[in-house]
Amino acid sequence: MKSPNKYHYKKLAEFCETMFNRAGVHLEKAKIVAQSLVEADLRGVDSHGVVRTSIYLKRIEEKMIDPNAMISVENEAESIAVVNGGNNFGALVGDKALRVSMQKAKATGIGIVGAKHSNHFGTGAYYALRAVKEELIILVMSNASQTMPPTGGVRPFLGTNPLAVGVPCGKYDPFILDMATSVVARGKIIVADQKEEKIPLGWAVDRHGKPTTSAKEALEGAVLPLGGAKGYGISMFIDILSGVLTGAGFGKYVRNMYEDWEFPQNVGHFFITIDVNRFMDIQIFKERMDMYMDDIKSEPRADGVHEILIPGEIEKRLSEKRKKEGIELPFKVEEELRNLGLKYDLDISKASIQNVKESEGV
Amino acid sequence: MKSPNKYHYKKLAEFCETMFNRAGVHLEKAKIVAQSLVEADLRGVDSHGVVRTSIYLKRIEEKMIDPNAMISVENEAESIAVVNGGNNFGALVGDKALRVSMQKAKATGIGIVGAKHSNHFGTGAYYALRAVKEELIILVMSNASQTMPPTGGVRPFLGTNPLAVGVPCGKYDPFILDMATSVVARGKIIVADQKEEKIPLGWAVDRHGKPTTSAKEALEGAVLPLGGAKGYGISMFIDILSGVLTGAGFGKYVRNMYEDWEFPQNVGHFFITIDVNRFMDIQIFKERMDMYMDDIKSEPRADGVHEILIPGEIEKRLSEKRKKEGIELPFKVEEELRNLGLKYDLDISKASIQNVKESEGV
Repeated sequence: MKSPNKYHYKKLAEFCETMFNRAGVHLEKAKIVAQSLVEADLRGVDSHGVVRTSIYLKRIEEKMIDPNAMISVENEAESIAVVNGGNNFGALVGDKALRVSMQKAKATGIGIVGAKHSNHFGTGAYYALRAVKEELIILVMSNASQTMPPTGGVRPFLGTNPLAVGVPCGKYDPFILDMATSVVARGKIIVADQKEEKIPLGWAVDRHGKPTTSAKEALEGAVLPLGGAKGYGISMFIDILSGVLTGAGFGKYVRNMYEDWEFPQNVGHFFITIDVNRFMDIQIFKERMDMYMDDIKSEPRADGVHEILIPGEIEKRLSEKRKKEGIELPFKVEEELRNLGLKYDLDISKASIQNVKESEGV
Repeated sequence: MKSPNKYHYKKLAEFCETMFNRAGVHLEKAKIVAQSLVEADLRGVDSHGVVRTSIYLKRIEEKMIDPNAMISVENEAESIAVVNGGNNFGALVGDKALRVSMQKAKATGIGIVGAKHSNHFGTGAYYALRAVKEELIILVMSNASQTMPPTGGVRPFLGTNPLAVGVPCGKYDPFILDMATSVVARGKIIVADQKEEKIPLGWAVDRHGKPTTSAKEALEGAVLPLGGAKGYGISMFIDILSGVLTGAGFGKYVRNMYEDWEFPQNVGHFFITIDVNRFMDIQIFKERMDMYMDDIKSEPRADGVHEILIPGEIEKRLSEKRKKEGIELPFKVEEELRNLGLKYDLDISKASIQNVKESEGV
């Protein structure tokens, strides 16, 4: 069996960016959306990567995303704001909320910014990485369409509402936690389905509430919350902050990106950004973080464990590897992108790492 | 076998309060500490209730808690502060941090207050309940002494670092999530040990890193984080905000309340308080919360489930029941309190619900 092609991250981003642009997105905006997707692929979160290009394009076409909508700031106070996304791309609404939140954190020590009338905003890590580059601590939350039953329920009610946290370190890479509040991200089940692989028992139930190992049945059923009632509670408060408090949808009022073609998603986000310097000198803080990392790294390890890892470390290493060696796309995704390329007069094969290296004379 | 005695919550609080007072704690301060303990018992979090009286008293005696220390506010900005607890009671440091945080939230929309040089602060729900009474949203975090191994490790490194969230509702009781970042709270294993009961497999490992059902072995070993690597990450960021950022201890620098008699605990806390009104009218917010609760409550239920519950609901109902019927104390705890009472010239039996009712002529 032929192994899948690998793609150069910059060329792959350009490919997506040009498609979005030709679909009516301003070039500068298209760049942000494409970069947020490829960043996810680089970090191994393939479920949130370029696999989403086709659904994004379809939602523009069906007027479920308005790529030219104004993104405005409401309810502004010294340390607070709500970003009204006007149903533009989630990545653009998230970008705006992040920037307002960082600016407020730098000015007052803290920036709390909600967002409403948004769409799927990609990975939380994308925003967390940008905040730690500016030496800020950040908590990023978003709600999502219905995927998980409440504890005691049988059908999807809550989203897998993700939480991401970024913290700058000194000699260590930043602490980047990015997790769905489900046992696993629903996207991982989508990928398993696309790869035609089975999923482990315990990840999800089918549409009758029965445990299943079929990715297809799981997608028709419900992913389970992380750690039972605790994950249920965490998912709820993320929905409350991102949705109920901002004016976005919440619970069943967050529409499904793949299935709902009548209403925009109305996703909500919530960014809490903190300027370390208001609490302690950033250099001392970084030394303390490094001490913490040194301590964890030198803990005795269980049999067969070669290294104790810090959240974000695997993704960072994978990102460096994929930048060099290319991003491998499953056949299904590759085919989808090839066909989309034909539609927008673009050739995906020009982004393959082999072709890029050849054209660069490597 | 004789069933355990039940105690009147107000009289039980008075009993503890008087003991703390006679042990050198100012009466008004002793009241707060005692109330935070009894509040935990009322809500069924027995592990954080009056069972802790004896260790608190012992730590005063051994000069590991200074009940007369100044609690001061440092690094103050419009929406930020750090409370230096000076090694006073955690309940008092938490009380101060909560009040500063609520006052800042009311003034600016947001109050972020860290605390350092503190001790075990009781349950997060105690603070969350006070904030929602003032119609504020709150996130409460604290670090704790080493209990859980990092993912891949074998011995305790991280605390079960709890997270509590409080959100006001309209016709519904407030949303009160209060959870440890372990599969279960370590306190539940302490209670199982005191009741001489076995614990379920999967809660903890023994000191060799092997799974165990013995509460005693588990207390010598390590509780496991909630949901594997995700719980590990959540526990870490709570430690980072509560400990690394505030100037408190973190990781191995948070001392064990039961085992360390050389150094104060140096626990850290982190309070994020949000004024709903800065985001939307509180009445509209409450209506939205009620809609959310209505929706969840009316979800179809799994076989054998009579009601879908909201975080905090069980505890609220139990609290009302225990206020009426009394708080049942395990024999071991009762005996400990009886002996402490003798030492401080107090009679625990006067707080039993039977005696209270008789003296009130019920």
